[in-house]
Amino acid sequence: MSHLSLDNTKLISRLRRIKGQMEGVERALESEADCGEVMRQLASIRGAMTGLTREVMEVHMREHVVAGPTEADRKSGAEEMIQILKSYMK
Amino acid sequence: MSHLSLDNTKLISRLRRIKGQMEGVERALESEADCGEVMRQLASIRGAMTGLTREVMEVHMREHVVAGPTEADRKSGAEEMIQILKSYMK
Amino acid sequence: MSHLSLDNTKLISRLRRIKGQMEGVERALESEADCGEVMRQLASIRGAMTGLTREVMEVHMREHVVAGPTEADRKSGAEEMIQILKSYMK
Amino acid sequence: MSHLSLDNTKLISRLRRIKGQMEGVERALESEADCGEVMRQLASIRGAMTGLTREVMEVHMREHVVAGPTEADRKSGAEEMIQILKSYMK
Repeated sequence: MSHLSLDNTKLISRLRRIKGQMEGVERALESEADCGEVMRQLASIRGAMTGLTREVMEVHMREHVVAGPTEADRKSGAEEMIQILKSYMK
Repeated sequence: MSHLSLDNTKLISRLRRIKGQMEGVERALESEADCGEVMRQLASIRGAMTGLTREVMEVHMREHVVAGPTEADRKSGAEEMIQILKSYMK
Repeated sequence: MSHLSLDNTKLISRLRRIKGQMEGVERALESEADCGEVMRQLASIRGAMTGLTREVMEVHMREHVVAGPTEADRKSGAEEMIQILKSYMK
Repeated sequence: MSHLSLDNTKLISRLRRIKGQMEGVERALESEADCGEVMRQLASIRGAMTGLTREVMEVHMREHVVAGPTEADRKSGAEEMIQILKSYMK
């Protein structure tokens, strides 16, 4: 499958922001913060990760499933997506 | 609400492992890796974050909802949990 | 655990509406409708089921975890909730 | 988009089984059953619905996104899938 050709710079900066949020949870755990606050921060990280994952899926769908150069590429792109969906939809 | 009194050292090391996985995704994006691989790594991070979040929820349920020192503490612990569930169950 | 004392009549009518949606999917499948439409109907059912489940969880949290008559009742209510969360948070 | 050409008979019987489970929840609510039991039944229905939905998505991916007769068909099949993913990945 050809390389990921989405706007990686934007994705990388989103990922770094999420890493910053995780460092916030780390500090909260180190300072034995209130677990309500830790749960809120974890829920916010989950939302950010879900948005990031969905964007990568969209690019994969458009570039490797629909516009794959050959039918074989399209098929393998679709099977990759189906495997990923299995891990999300339990 | 009293501080989070779960085994924070274990949670912190789990969190650091997940941060390491995120650095892996960052490298994959920087090297324009195949988006199937990026999606697989993101799905694995999601699984690890879900497990970590569930553990914090369990401690919160046992320590702040059931065993909160007063009925008022128990009520506010339960309301915190209900708000968190709203963000997970959409 | 004491009986579910939430407004069952409202929950039952919500459940019947969802059953009606499912009959809609059944007709769509029987008439070999477009799978995009079937997926949209299934997503809508999922949303309705999630809302209904969350409401039952809220009542359980308030009535059986926080306000359980004894500490033993509260503990078993919390453990029930923790088991349910495991099935949702994979 | 061409009609859903997956094995509808199997899907319809799965859907009917899930409807039967919902009737079980209806009876449980009518008989004011224990909400732990109602939550377990709802979680089981959710699992069955998720499996059914995933199967329809797989067929859609293979038949309408990868093997759509024209590029325009493939594109519209992919966009339908992307919209559905948005409702699942919040």
